[in-house]
Amino acid sequence: MYKAIGYAAHTATTPLVPFNFERRELTPNDVQIEILYCGVCHSDIHQVRNEWGGSTFPMVPGHEIVGKVTGIGSAVSAFKIGDSVGVGCLVDACGDCPDCRDDLEQYCNGAVFTYNSYDRHTGGSNYGGYSNSIVVAQHFVLKVSDRLELAAVAPLLCAGITTYSPLMHWQVGNGDKVGVVGLGGLGHMAVKFAHALGAHVVLFTTTPGKADDAKRLGADEVVISKDPDAMAQHLASFDFILNTVAAPHNLDAYTALLKRDGTLCLVGVPEHPHPSPAVGNLIFKRRSIAGSLIGGLKETQDMLDFCAEHNITSDIEIIAIQQINEAYERVLRSDVKYRFVIDMASLV
Amino acid sequence: MYKAIGYAAHTATTPLVPFNFERRELTPNDVQIEILYCGVCHSDIHQVRNEWGGSTFPMVPGHEIVGKVTGIGSAVSAFKIGDSVGVGCLVDACGDCPDCRDDLEQYCNGAVFTYNSYDRHTGGSNYGGYSNSIVVAQHFVLKVSDRLELAAVAPLLCAGITTYSPLMHWQVGNGDKVGVVGLGGLGHMAVKFAHALGAHVVLFTTTPGKADDAKRLGADEVVISKDPDAMAQHLASFDFILNTVAAPHNLDAYTALLKRDGTLCLVGVPEHPHPSPAVGNLIFKRRSIAGSLIGGLKETQDMLDFCAEHNITSDIEIIAIQQINEAYERVLRSDVKYRFVIDMASLV
Repeated sequence: MYKAIGYAAHTATTPLVPFNFERRELTPNDVQIEILYCGVCHSDIHQVRNEWGGSTFPMVPGHEIVGKVTGIGSAVSAFKIGDSVGVGCLVDACGDCPDCRDDLEQYCNGAVFTYNSYDRHTGGSNYGGYSNSIVVAQHFVLKVSDRLELAAVAPLLCAGITTYSPLMHWQVGNGDKVGVVGLGGLGHMAVKFAHALGAHVVLFTTTPGKADDAKRLGADEVVISKDPDAMAQHLASFDFILNTVAAPHNLDAYTALLKRDGTLCLVGVPEHPHPSPAVGNLIFKRRSIAGSLIGGLKETQDMLDFCAEHNITSDIEIIAIQQINEAYERVLRSDVKYRFVIDMASLV
Repeated sequence: MYKAIGYAAHTATTPLVPFNFERRELTPNDVQIEILYCGVCHSDIHQVRNEWGGSTFPMVPGHEIVGKVTGIGSAVSAFKIGDSVGVGCLVDACGDCPDCRDDLEQYCNGAVFTYNSYDRHTGGSNYGGYSNSIVVAQHFVLKVSDRLELAAVAPLLCAGITTYSPLMHWQVGNGDKVGVVGLGGLGHMAVKFAHALGAHVVLFTTTPGKADDAKRLGADEVVISKDPDAMAQHLASFDFILNTVAAPHNLDAYTALLKRDGTLCLVGVPEHPHPSPAVGNLIFKRRSIAGSLIGGLKETQDMLDFCAEHNITSDIEIIAIQQINEAYERVLRSDVKYRFVIDMASLV
């Protein structure tokens, strides 16, 4: 074990504070990483505040990690010291189930998330990216191109892959009409990806003030979802709609906009249920409502390579770790364009 | 116009009674059919009693029609007098939209259903199969093999295609594990089809007494859906579940049984909404909830051909038209195995 420092919550109702803890030594399959930047995800707040239940404390959040390799185990050949790398939401999986064999480790029943999950190496809960260093099995380490701004890469590891994966799975491509619901950390990445894939992108928002920014990010059209006339103009016209809004809302307004065989994909779990969706909307055009969870390691690497090729990163606001509790309040007010990223140089 | 006889409801609250009306003369594209049998679908009751709204009276219900060709228009070459034929839920469509071009006329915005729909030929509502004769455009007439019992073919035209189409669309095949929820008119056909397609079929029912019959029809297993332990044994194991129950119920019990990427397909519209499905069940295994509506003409013909090849028909109870009002009450009590079929010889 070696000493690491970070920020942790000690209870569900107290702010994050400086925290000294230990990381495991490198095993032959491990990569040791100096963390340079870590994105701030809304799910960090949910878990710190135990809003999903089952949180363990002290908790060091953070699963949008980028940094440099500082050590490699004896069996590691794909990485060398000094490489730019990333770690996302996953740090372990069984490796042997149908999901793992299909490179979809996120669906493995043995998937280990990056923090607040059981760590078989230490027998306790693991610690995330709001810290100066981490040790991760090589299969769960991603290569990051030095052509991209490292800080702005961090949110790709969760917000990026969460939106990229469903666009791939439902085969969004050139000429498709794609909707994105919500322009936050996830939504702004979905707009960038769908645009880069050649789709005609329509951004749905309740906030008229977001229209200009949505178009700058790649949206071809912006629809104010509270305007029934504007919504009606798009009836039965979408191939795919990616819904990034977790707050409970009427899904029928979106299923009605899908073509026959179209899919409305949800990527956020609402704290309270959405109103029950109208089955008739599904039956009369053979539409689907589906869900999608982050992405597997292979697809996350594909996404990072796609980003390097298309010069895509997240729009970010860099903060010092000392601002994290204030940043959480701003995330809850949607007062961020579009992702906070902690500069870990502030930690020391 | 020529004279026809049938049974009609004159209001939403009065029984069906004998009814004299007129059918259109043959146009060049039409086929005239002597109706021999017509199945009794639960949706007949919904429409007769105006439970979906918008019903027009007098109403002659019936969209599970089989009979013999008694006349053909000058442009009809695929049918000849004396042929055994069927007519299902559709009698017209625009013919030119993407749905029609894809042989999925049921999703066409201009689809005309067999009764209680606007008939462009007469400018009024059309009349269905509880009658002695009907005239239908040739595109909407199906060929029926004389190898099958004609009366038992009638329910294939709605109950059959409604279950066959989603099994085809979601590519159910050999070795798949398929669930069927509910053992009524639709469910008993779904069990037969899924079994014939080589799937491992699990029938879900709330009624233990249906187990033996389900196995006779082709189910490999029967699960009592009210038994949480029995349900838990099937967690995350199904490729596809076809849910034929329209009464509001907890869909989460079934989404939880789907494998990653599995689909729960609904074919019934509940009068009141189902409890809102848990989004987490969808996200954590990339599952879908979808809907499906009857089938197009090409697929309906494929289904009838599949039935002839595999010797599949509906399990039926033949009634005289004079028993129709009593039969409706028995349908509402689920007191039928598994479909009433009216013998139109009783009409004269």
